[in-house]
Amino acid sequence: MDSDYGVPRELSDLQKQRSLYQPELPPCLQGTTVRVEFGDSTTPADPAGAHVISRAFPHTYGQPLAHFLRATANVPDAQIITEHPPIRVGVVFSGRQSPGGHNVIWGLHAAIKCHNPNSSLLGFLGGTDGLFAQKTLEITDEVLATYKNQGGYDLLGRTKDQIRTTEQVNAALATCQNLKLDGLVIIGGVTSNTDAAQLAETFADSKCSTKVVGVPVTLNGDLRNQFVETNVGFDTICKVNSQLISNVCTDALSAEKYYYFIRLMGRKASHVALECTLQSHPNLVILGEEVAASKLTLFDITKQICDAVQARAEQDKNHGVILIPEGLVETIPELYALLQEIHGLHGEGVSSDNISSRLSPWASALFEFLPPFIRKQLLLHPESDDSAQLSQIETEKLLAQLVETEINKRMKEGTYKGKKFNAICHFFGYQARGSLPSKFDCDYAYVLGHICYHILAAGLNGYMATVTNLKNPANKWRCAAAPITSMMTVKRWSRGPSATAIGKPAVHPASIDLKGKPYELLRHNATKFLLDDIYRNPGPLQFEGPGADAKTFTLTADDQDYMGRIKLLQEYLEKVRSIVKPGCSQEILKAALSAMSSVTDVLTVMSSSNSFTGHLTL
Amino acid sequence: MDSDYGVPRELSDLQKQRSLYQPELPPCLQGTTVRVEFGDSTTPADPAGAHVISRAFPHTYGQPLAHFLRATANVPDAQIITEHPPIRVGVVFSGRQSPGGHNVIWGLHAAIKCHNPNSSLLGFLGGTDGLFAQKTLEITDEVLATYKNQGGYDLLGRTKDQIRTTEQVNAALATCQNLKLDGLVIIGGVTSNTDAAQLAETFADSKCSTKVVGVPVTLNGDLRNQFVETNVGFDTICKVNSQLISNVCTDALSAEKYYYFIRLMGRKASHVALECTLQSHPNLVILGEEVAASKLTLFDITKQICDAVQARAEQDKNHGVILIPEGLVETIPELYALLQEIHGLHGEGVSSDNISSRLSPWASALFEFLPPFIRKQLLLHPESDDSAQLSQIETEKLLAQLVETEINKRMKEGTYKGKKFNAICHFFGYQARGSLPSKFDCDYAYVLGHICYHILAAGLNGYMATVTNLKNPANKWRCAAAPITSMMTVKRWSRGPSATAIGKPAVHPASIDLKGKPYELLRHNATKFLLDDIYRNPGPLQFEGPGADAKTFTLTADDQDYMGRIKLLQEYLEKVRSIVKPGCSQEILKAALSAMSSVTDVLTVMSSSNSFTGHLTL
Repeated sequence: MDSDYGVPRELSDLQKQRSLYQPELPPCLQGTTVRVEFGDSTTPADPAGAHVISRAFPHTYGQPLAHFLRATANVPDAQIITEHPPIRVGVVFSGRQSPGGHNVIWGLHAAIKCHNPNSSLLGFLGGTDGLFAQKTLEITDEVLATYKNQGGYDLLGRTKDQIRTTEQVNAALATCQNLKLDGLVIIGGVTSNTDAAQLAETFADSKCSTKVVGVPVTLNGDLRNQFVETNVGFDTICKVNSQLISNVCTDALSAEKYYYFIRLMGRKASHVALECTLQSHPNLVILGEEVAASKLTLFDITKQICDAVQARAEQDKNHGVILIPEGLVETIPELYALLQEIHGLHGEGVSSDNISSRLSPWASALFEFLPPFIRKQLLLHPESDDSAQLSQIETEKLLAQLVETEINKRMKEGTYKGKKFNAICHFFGYQARGSLPSKFDCDYAYVLGHICYHILAAGLNGYMATVTNLKNPANKWRCAAAPITSMMTVKRWSRGPSATAIGKPAVHPASIDLKGKPYELLRHNATKFLLDDIYRNPGPLQFEGPGADAKTFTLTADDQDYMGRIKLLQEYLEKVRSIVKPGCSQEILKAALSAMSSVTDVLTVMSSSNSFTGHLTL
Repeated sequence: MDSDYGVPRELSDLQKQRSLYQPELPPCLQGTTVRVEFGDSTTPADPAGAHVISRAFPHTYGQPLAHFLRATANVPDAQIITEHPPIRVGVVFSGRQSPGGHNVIWGLHAAIKCHNPNSSLLGFLGGTDGLFAQKTLEITDEVLATYKNQGGYDLLGRTKDQIRTTEQVNAALATCQNLKLDGLVIIGGVTSNTDAAQLAETFADSKCSTKVVGVPVTLNGDLRNQFVETNVGFDTICKVNSQLISNVCTDALSAEKYYYFIRLMGRKASHVALECTLQSHPNLVILGEEVAASKLTLFDITKQICDAVQARAEQDKNHGVILIPEGLVETIPELYALLQEIHGLHGEGVSSDNISSRLSPWASALFEFLPPFIRKQLLLHPESDDSAQLSQIETEKLLAQLVETEINKRMKEGTYKGKKFNAICHFFGYQARGSLPSKFDCDYAYVLGHICYHILAAGLNGYMATVTNLKNPANKWRCAAAPITSMMTVKRWSRGPSATAIGKPAVHPASIDLKGKPYELLRHNATKFLLDDIYRNPGPLQFEGPGADAKTFTLTADDQDYMGRIKLLQEYLEKVRSIVKPGCSQEILKAALSAMSSVTDVLTVMSSSNSFTGHLTL
């Protein structure tokens, strides 16, 4: 089977054309001389966790930001890396396949070879299992030929998606040492990047010379923080899903007899559902973050949907489209508690058949109330990150069934006067995940691949490749690297099963910022979406012409460019220093002291009150 | 609610661009002078039914073919329609929404207005229900603006999808007379066009001056015969579904742990499944026509899939993609017989709850064997064409469940040595049906709309608008009209519940020609598809660049252009007549007689042996 990886494939005309597409590099990465400017040492956004994180990551905590600049950039302290000895790098896919993943490998390969043709890139076959077993494929231009700008992870495959147990970490260490790797690039989402940070720390501690680099590739779009604006795959997934949702909306409006309940892949957070709502204007979306914030129960949600159906029926509309994020099930308090009990029993080794009899009385009552199909799904073994098997739990069917029962009841009572309620359920995930990546994801992934090389060339360990200012064209993108530890938070409480124990630092999935602009945009339009059927079809993913360069609302509505501001701040501080040089007048010095004292006071107060509430972590 | 039809909508950038796309007209339809050449009077392809059809349709049977030609075409007998008095035309959607439907209305409107600005086009709101209730919307350029080249049927909506009962036919007659319609255009598939033919006959008999025209618009692609090469919507549906299937294939190959069972919308025949297989190369497709031809039982099919899974496991492949046409359930003999009993009991007014107790012993035994979810679905009321509710019967789940049981059994016995079998089920239908139409469907539908006008201008009744030579560019397309009665066949036996009684003429869905080239292409590659994972991704529907002008394999592989050949034959006959004129030599006359006598002998023998076996009707 392994021999099938990386084999050349028959491509369709469109695939062929896409394979010839060459993503643009931002000016700072063009050519072979790139400057690295080190910023200040980093601190996590949540200062309360800093101490715990620094103790857990003595080697890799507090490292400085690294900005990659044009060789000609006018920055005094930047360092030009002139020597490029041959290096050996390994790369592995870890986690759900995301459109664009192949381009990270391509970008990395292009950068490696362009700086030294004697360098080599080894891909691990079958994901992390291949890493543990030292199964590799040398990446060459021939191997890449039919995978450039193509979807899926089938060039190398994926399996376990974790490097966490002592056994796994030791196997990874042995592989890196045996293969004499200078670098290991891990392509994945929040848990894979947490694993990458842990591996970097372990390697440093073991005096293993392999540097570990993480790349933010996850269709969920939940690896977001001060340094990371979006993830490879999110753009494509949202566009493909939005197309399908819009098609279903058009369908609903044409036949006027169905309610479509569509569950969307995207793990715990509801980023995909929010973005798709903004792109295609379905009637209703139940965001996990809203449910969590308001502690809505299954019955509250059912009532909310029924009220919506009834309000539409009063306008003679007997059709509609409702989006459900797959993570919703873990945000509904009573279902979450039930799942926790079930997973606890799994952990004790209780077999699925015996779990129901071991539940607490209240959990047992809820369990018995649920329809048989969902009971079976809740009993499934948890995933590699210890969360429920969200893709297998048909929350949309459960809700559709509860809504139907309630609407029928209201019909009998005479409060609902619409037509018979008909629901059709869908799960959109697998059919989007393997899609050809959008232009944005092709470009973003390719650039990240290049950055991985420069991180390794600069000898950095435990960093993530980042690109910011993404809402602007590629020639304005800022390329940098941030220590993964600076993206970590420490949970002091837990909502829902999780890969990491309470108190252990980790990169956590960012949930939707309920004060952010994308969410504000949704709330502003929610009533129109619900009642006016202003469905909008972004259409099938285009590679040329209108729509080909469209970016997600999540990316463009948000006020981002954190890295740009960090650099601007540095410039201001530099300017103050250059104005207030020894020898300047007393007046100037006094004015500077007074102003700076007030600035530092304000910032001290803000920092200690822990204003980090923007990104709630579930 | 009605006031919502035809309202302008907010369009995405891509939708806006598409709304500005102007389909090309073939040369014969350009300008305002079009010639009509009448061919020979038509005969149905199945001569055995001719007598029955001619008796059932005394007014509309045996009418000649009509070819639409350039005004300058060098054809002696063609007639130029020079007068274009203002006319009033009604148009109605009947049947499942198909991408491109809106363009028929646009093309019709453009042709009507271009020949006389005082003519008017009325759209019936809410499909056939609107026709019966005389609910109309005047179609104008403003109304059309945001619906040009857009998917769905939401400009006018659809409902009952039949004009069949005496009450319905009388209501349609009253509407046409009250609104003083010169023409009624019915946009739909096989049953809607059968209804159109019946309506045309009734109108002629009642001296109603409204002419009825049918348009072949159905995503199923099953309205195929000597005059109709493909249907509006089929191209789009196959492309959108193929994209999704390919994405799932890539997904399967990336994670290597799932078998995807994908059911495809497409009614009784398996055209959509065959075309999608040729476009995306999934591992296996179970065509209804093969199952019917070989009389495969549920257990045969289960065994076939299990053998495939086992053969792949022996090559260390534990993933795969299997396509199931939605009509499959009606081609499996025992399920079909069970459905017939159930529908019979429905017909007797037995309620769903009581049906199971009224089944015959053997049907009851089968019914009890089936999992509860499928029992419930089989008990649903039949559709408007009296067939089962195919979209609601989850045959893919039934098969996945049976395969899982059998594979687990083989695993225990030690014959299956692969990994644990995991199936994920999908139904692809609604999410494709509302898609933006492909360029081909936009063009084809627009041209058909134009032809509808010319049929009415020529005063023809009971005709279907046709375009042939479609595999060539639009400037080579042949535009014509054929009496719907010439597309009818008479069933002398019945396989499966059907809209029409045995012995009653109807346009029947054409099933896959098991001797045809598209099927041959599948058989030729079936083993490679099964074992070699040569997945191919046609990619998302493109409107510019490579792939934008791709046509279906079904259309391009088939050796078509029937209308071109009919015309060529006419030319040969004409040529013989012009060579063998009175006065020619005895030798020439004798040679002509001898040759023609042998030709007529061969044709007589071929016709009487009823060689019409190409298109089996289910």
